[in-house]
Amino acid sequence: MKASEPPERVSLGRLGERGLIRRIRATPVAAGDSGVEVGIGDDTAVLAVPPGHRLLVTTDLVIENVHFRRVSAAPSDIGWKALAVNLSDIAAMGGTPRWALVALAVPADTDVEAVDAFFGGMQEAAGPHGVTVVGGDTSASPAGWMVNVTVLGLHPGAPRLRSQARAGDMVAVTGTLGASAAGLFALEMGLDRASEHGVVPGRLAEVTRAHLRPRARVAEGLWLGQASGVHAMMDCSDGLATDLGHICGESGVGARIRLDRVPIAAAAREAARALGQDARQWAVAGGEDYELLLTCSPEAADRLAVGLIEATGTPLSMIGRIDGASGEVIFVDQDDRPVPMRSGYEHFHGTGRDG
Amino acid sequence: MKASEPPERVSLGRLGERGLIRRIRATPVAAGDSGVEVGIGDDTAVLAVPPGHRLLVTTDLVIENVHFRRVSAAPSDIGWKALAVNLSDIAAMGGTPRWALVALAVPADTDVEAVDAFFGGMQEAAGPHGVTVVGGDTSASPAGWMVNVTVLGLHPGAPRLRSQARAGDMVAVTGTLGASAAGLFALEMGLDRASEHGVVPGRLAEVTRAHLRPRARVAEGLWLGQASGVHAMMDCSDGLATDLGHICGESGVGARIRLDRVPIAAAAREAARALGQDARQWAVAGGEDYELLLTCSPEAADRLAVGLIEATGTPLSMIGRIDGASGEVIFVDQDDRPVPMRSGYEHFHGTGRDG
Repeated sequence: MKASEPPERVSLGRLGERGLIRRIRATPVAAGDSGVEVGIGDDTAVLAVPPGHRLLVTTDLVIENVHFRRVSAAPSDIGWKALAVNLSDIAAMGGTPRWALVALAVPADTDVEAVDAFFGGMQEAAGPHGVTVVGGDTSASPAGWMVNVTVLGLHPGAPRLRSQARAGDMVAVTGTLGASAAGLFALEMGLDRASEHGVVPGRLAEVTRAHLRPRARVAEGLWLGQASGVHAMMDCSDGLATDLGHICGESGVGARIRLDRVPIAAAAREAARALGQDARQWAVAGGEDYELLLTCSPEAADRLAVGLIEATGTPLSMIGRIDGASGEVIFVDQDDRPVPMRSGYEHFHGTGRDG
Repeated sequence: MKASEPPERVSLGRLGERGLIRRIRATPVAAGDSGVEVGIGDDTAVLAVPPGHRLLVTTDLVIENVHFRRVSAAPSDIGWKALAVNLSDIAAMGGTPRWALVALAVPADTDVEAVDAFFGGMQEAAGPHGVTVVGGDTSASPAGWMVNVTVLGLHPGAPRLRSQARAGDMVAVTGTLGASAAGLFALEMGLDRASEHGVVPGRLAEVTRAHLRPRARVAEGLWLGQASGVHAMMDCSDGLATDLGHICGESGVGARIRLDRVPIAAAAREAARALGQDARQWAVAGGEDYELLLTCSPEAADRLAVGLIEATGTPLSMIGRIDGASGEVIFVDQDDRPVPMRSGYEHFHGTGRDG
């Protein structure tokens, strides 16, 4: 019996830049009215912005050994996440994501299959939202993968801003927090070791997926962006403490958060217990859950929570109040006693992290 | 006498990401009606697109030791060029550049002054065109500088595309070619050595500036984009041979170029003579001159050349004809005999280059 031959390995060095662009161009675009008059292949993309819409634009860098490690993130995961984090920014404004530009630099000896998988993962994240890749750039990289994705979205009215929180507002968050940080912790320690500590396989898969393939709350952002009573909104990417600090700073208000009301993902709780970690800390400071963080008028709170879960299946938890000195975020227990919590991550301080 | 103390060195590691974003936010934005409803500081920028305008979007990566070397490019040069190459793409469509997003990754020990200089150079390139930096991202980098700039522009009508060349068209190029390649060559060999070979200081400064601080032909693109008789247009970034090949490939036509009519920069000619190089080769294959390359109806040629120089001071040279087999670009001498020329650069093939 003859052993089957391994598939021939094709590096980008052999395919060349034009060959790569041809491959990317061949990827399917979203069906329907994409608004794309000219896509990949000219000097710029040409896009039709419907009358009466504001344009939303956001860009995010994703860099190997800073935002991810190749040992834990497959190329398809990198593509998914690089797009999803931008979708989340559009969602946070209450907008509809429409178009993406993708700049990718990889070492010249990278397999073409890895690049195909990268774009495949990106399409998986983009497709359900009708987002079309309309342009980009490719380059050799002297050291590791570097990705920059720009997403453009549309908004028919007034986008939700960080600066719109008002004294007396409730603070609310969609879904649950902490799973992404739990996933990062497990990936960094090694999944085998995490298993040995007693994290069950299903939970391990859940938290690593939350970290590697976060879901942007696009439908939730659209619903909340049109609902009356929602004031400030942003996405929770740097961690609840840090991001709420941004809302407070931009709005000139403070916040008082009831720790026991912060919704922690069940998988994060279980992983924390098995691994001897503090799930509350993951939920408050871990970041990268890409939930939506918002403030709303107290009268609207119940209506918004009921309406959101009915419309999207996603819960909305009221976790505290806008209250206190400008820029200050205080976590308290059920008896209103302050509980010191670490806040989130900042680039340039200390070493890079996966995330 | 007390020696003056050197200024205190502040690294990004000390300033932190938020400190850096505050600094970037403090940079001046273009005056007048910028169309910016929300700029740096929220989840996305919010922009007003005037009715009846198409949106143009382009993005370019600029990576240390692939596109530039720190030894020859100052941070302000990197900022200038990273923006200018995108302006050139908008110009090539006949559009007006309006907004930019800037993603910058640098090692954590980078001096804040270097980052300030980077944004200063970018503002120098953006300001005269009324382009406002409306957002971006910053990250630590594990290896060298990486920049990704996205520029958005507007067009009130039908943008000029690569695919619009027609059989019988004249091929034309703005300004002169070859100076950027001459500058790259001199920078790579060392300016001192280039001087020793007899390149005079003024010419050396001219060619290195052409390479490090290219000027995008924005006014020229606007004028040509509105002039009748212009068909295909693109910017000359990968070299005349390669870029004309793109126009021919997208249009399903060929081109026949008279080498003696290709406008070569005087400084490139002089540098080539002193350095024993072929200025024609620099002009045809060097790339990065960021001139505009176009095709037009023969009847329009004289009118366009006279009109462009009157409107902008920039000459337009007729260098050949759209003629022959699809995708084929042939260079000929004054007796119509083919002259073999090397074509331009492609990423992933061979080693990186500065450019």
